[in-house]
Amino acid sequence: MDDIKKMIRDIPDFPKEGIIFRDITTAIKDAKTMQKIVDLMAAEYENEKIDYVAGIESRGFIFGMPIAYKLGCGFIPIRKPGKLPAQTISQEYSLEYGKDKIEIHKDALKKGDRVLIVDDLLATGGTAAAAAKLVQSTSELVGISFLIELQDLKGREKLPKGIKVSSLVKY
Amino acid sequence: MDDIKKMIRDIPDFPKEGIIFRDITTAIKDAKTMQKIVDLMAAEYENEKIDYVAGIESRGFIFGMPIAYKLGCGFIPIRKPGKLPAQTISQEYSLEYGKDKIEIHKDALKKGDRVLIVDDLLATGGTAAAAAKLVQSTSELVGISFLIELQDLKGREKLPKGIKVSSLVKY
Repeated sequence: MDDIKKMIRDIPDFPKEGIIFRDITTAIKDAKTMQKIVDLMAAEYENEKIDYVAGIESRGFIFGMPIAYKLGCGFIPIRKPGKLPAQTISQEYSLEYGKDKIEIHKDALKKGDRVLIVDDLLATGGTAAAAAKLVQSTSELVGISFLIELQDLKGREKLPKGIKVSSLVKY
Repeated sequence: MDDIKKMIRDIPDFPKEGIIFRDITTAIKDAKTMQKIVDLMAAEYENEKIDYVAGIESRGFIFGMPIAYKLGCGFIPIRKPGKLPAQTISQEYSLEYGKDKIEIHKDALKKGDRVLIVDDLLATGGTAAAAAKLVQSTSELVGISFLIELQDLKGREKLPKGIKVSSLVKY
């Protein structure tokens, strides 16, 4: 994965001092790198009979949709509050300071649906854990796929046990 | 396109009274409809030698990335202020009440790059016109592709002349 890693740009002090932001825009701007990312992320689940990819707003949309396209399954957005127009269920999660919430349409998933959650980055795992709870409240969560994992932050430990968690690029 | 249109759900009075919201989540949840949307949106530009698809946050990401994947080109996000980590150029546009802004990375495009802008919906055209200005300030805008066009709102008239504007489903 070193060829993918070298296409991810490091931006120091963003969004605040002391943080190195892993900028994926340079990786997806390059057609070959983008195709490779999508193909590899999809390949890990091609034998898992996924019914739906659920992407977390908004960089999870970037990878989730082409993975769904490639796997031949449907796509379901998990969004910030107030964005989804029909009835939703929501899940709170903690931020460094304060709390936030994500939502999914109440009728998006049903019992027995096999779901893959996709996001760009696993950091502390708060958002992905909340997304996992939303999916597991109505259907079967098969896996969670990230492009990047920041291993020092131990986000993996916050995710449900027994669920496959994959990441292409590790820091 | 009637088979696609019938998969788009109408939500009355969202985001406010009197508005019928065209909900695409039901269309992209259905694997066949989603594939058809992406294939048809991409097909209109497959002979246009597109270098980059630029998707407008955040539903433009949903369609823009699989179209870029299908066309074999790179993807560039046009985002809300403060989200892109490197140096940006920005463009203001008017809302019904007040103003908003979108941004693109300053180094994302260069002279001669052939660019397709993608978004889910053409309404009044303010956001797409701002995105067009951002792209045209540095590169060649080839076309703007929407899934849905709300024809009564005449958004097309706000978009640059001489640029191909396409939409799959019209209301």
